[in-house]
Amino acid sequence: MKLVVQKYGGSSVATTEKILKVADTVIKRKDAGEDIVVVVSAMGDTTDDLISLAKGVSHNPSKREMDVLLSTGEMISASLLAMALINKGYDAISYTAYQISIKTNGGYGKSLIEDIDVTRVEESLNEGKIVIVAGFQGINEVGDITTLGRGGSDTSAVALAVKLGGRCEIYTDVDGIYSCDPRKYKEAKKLEYIEYEEMLELASLGAQVMHSRSIELAQKYDIPVYVGLSCSNIVGTEIRGGKTMNLESKPVTGIATSDDDVAITIEDLKSDINIICELFEKIGSKKINIDMISQTAPINGYVNVSFTVPKTEIIEAMDILISLVDKSQIVVDEEITKFSLVGIGMKCTSGVAAKLFRIFSDGNIDVKMITTSEIRITCAIKQEDKLKALNLVAKEFNL
Amino acid sequence: MKLVVQKYGGSSVATTEKILKVADTVIKRKDAGEDIVVVVSAMGDTTDDLISLAKGVSHNPSKREMDVLLSTGEMISASLLAMALINKGYDAISYTAYQISIKTNGGYGKSLIEDIDVTRVEESLNEGKIVIVAGFQGINEVGDITTLGRGGSDTSAVALAVKLGGRCEIYTDVDGIYSCDPRKYKEAKKLEYIEYEEMLELASLGAQVMHSRSIELAQKYDIPVYVGLSCSNIVGTEIRGGKTMNLESKPVTGIATSDDDVAITIEDLKSDINIICELFEKIGSKKINIDMISQTAPINGYVNVSFTVPKTEIIEAMDILISLVDKSQIVVDEEITKFSLVGIGMKCTSGVAAKLFRIFSDGNIDVKMITTSEIRITCAIKQEDKLKALNLVAKEFNL
Repeated sequence: MKLVVQKYGGSSVATTEKILKVADTVIKRKDAGEDIVVVVSAMGDTTDDLISLAKGVSHNPSKREMDVLLSTGEMISASLLAMALINKGYDAISYTAYQISIKTNGGYGKSLIEDIDVTRVEESLNEGKIVIVAGFQGINEVGDITTLGRGGSDTSAVALAVKLGGRCEIYTDVDGIYSCDPRKYKEAKKLEYIEYEEMLELASLGAQVMHSRSIELAQKYDIPVYVGLSCSNIVGTEIRGGKTMNLESKPVTGIATSDDDVAITIEDLKSDINIICELFEKIGSKKINIDMISQTAPINGYVNVSFTVPKTEIIEAMDILISLVDKSQIVVDEEITKFSLVGIGMKCTSGVAAKLFRIFSDGNIDVKMITTSEIRITCAIKQEDKLKALNLVAKEFNL
Repeated sequence: MKLVVQKYGGSSVATTEKILKVADTVIKRKDAGEDIVVVVSAMGDTTDDLISLAKGVSHNPSKREMDVLLSTGEMISASLLAMALINKGYDAISYTAYQISIKTNGGYGKSLIEDIDVTRVEESLNEGKIVIVAGFQGINEVGDITTLGRGGSDTSAVALAVKLGGRCEIYTDVDGIYSCDPRKYKEAKKLEYIEYEEMLELASLGAQVMHSRSIELAQKYDIPVYVGLSCSNIVGTEIRGGKTMNLESKPVTGIATSDDDVAITIEDLKSDINIICELFEKIGSKKINIDMISQTAPINGYVNVSFTVPKTEIIEAMDILISLVDKSQIVVDEEITKFSLVGIGMKCTSGVAAKLFRIFSDGNIDVKMITTSEIRITCAIKQEDKLKALNLVAKEFNL
């Protein structure tokens, strides 16, 4: 019997009406002869509502207790979906994290799945039941409830597909993965397939469709993951390994943009590797996530060093910098966009960077910083140039 | 160190402001040197809101899934109270049913507590923590979440007090146990003490202050239970065993009234014990809860048999009766009140019944049915006579 793990996001189960629609969709697949495990997120705004309750009793809520609180959201939607299916005459059963031993490690609010004991899930499937699992949650080594971070239900679904040996389908409010954001570039093309690595670069670069840890897990165990619109017949996108793909076809798969960072430049820093090293060590020790780093060539023994940090961490970063260099040396640019071209094909296609720079140059788009990986080129550009850049580049690379 | 298990009901934790107030009250006791375990109910209307969500996906929601759904209410309030205490600088930790193995048996929605593993609770108390436990829930022998029925958090609290060897305090929105309903009889007196047995009769007779199973449990293990208004200095009532009481003091402790039943009379039934037996067996087999039963003396071999059933079960009861006797023989009286006098002192005081009937007779109050136990007299009277009866009887017995 074919086994599929489906995940429905918060917007897909936001109301009881939508839960009934999800039940109908699940039933169609069950009737077609598949074994089905459904992972659900919390209904619509439940998580935000719970967070605001927590803020009502504490300015800085205990992380352990926050995880207890948030885990209820997925228990609610899981039990409601099971009820809906049972009401429609299908045998269904919901499981919480502790009932199927979703073991986690790592901190509260951001833990990792270590293992799942799928014995009860398999027993229930063998009894003909549709199994509903509360996503996003696990139990750590001391028996505390921990959550997997926003979007963590994606990872719950992939982990279950790995352990059960099934395929995985993620249903959400977008109808697939696009080469670039269709709200910003109207002709953006939906991708039929995308490789794990490409999706990882896109997920971490601001294309917020999937929890990036879920892609890493799918890649590690080579589980194909389908992403599509819930309760619809529109064909979505399959995320999968490279074996079956034609690497020659296209050097660039997609574009991701992000306005979530600021660029910081330290001017006239003594060109001394120890000083620069101390700078990044101190910032790193505060768990501030530095991304792009660039350094100018030394002039008279002095260099300019630039890097980006998340907007949410700018105050902490500044505190550290002010303790190290004179305030007048620090220039902060909050108006940047990280513009990234991603494509597994870049590995064996030269000239992508050159083509990109030519487009930017012809379009009068100023590039402030550049970083690259094997399958990605990222440029920091002015936010005001973002839409122009997106349209020009998407068109030239036929995305 | 003194140990106390406090339970706060839904109205006491209905908002984040009220949760903060409960936290302050708990802290005062902690500062006074007590070890504290707090059992919480779901916030205010949470349980009703969850039930209406369930009704949105199913007309007859699965009982197993309903218990999963409802158990989230207490997890929410438990985690919020722990957060509030931590925010005020006190170490606190919340536990769900499965984290402290609250083992249950019996059906969903009405299960009984079999055992609690208090190891983690004791460890946390030894570490100086205030322990918060989600009430109302347990885990059955197959690992499913089950709930204890409305008011079940009282039983969670008493069970924890039994296992931990502490005293138990139930905080609610009434300031103690009264000799009769103070909304109906203004001079009703609050009791300083009440015995388990009396409280059991009152709880099961419509004085809806406490979950009656919690009293049975307290009685079994002789744990005193204090009932009072939350976050207040008003002195409430202690429910306890009879050892320390003066049995001679007063024959009647309290009055309870209930309008939740209907009286059914079968007229001209053949006076044959087999027929009457069959009648009650058939009703009993449908789990319909028959309470008062009375039978007239046979006249020419025929009797009238009357009994009360809960209003909610009248349709099922009628279906059975119509299959056994002619419809014309059945008389239903929906306008009755069960009026009960309760007092451990009745055991050794004669004349209570006589005095009661004299009051009714002088007051022109018609008594339709009578049942008695060792410590209780219950009369079915007309609903329209309820307030008059309450005032006359309370005054005469000095309640």
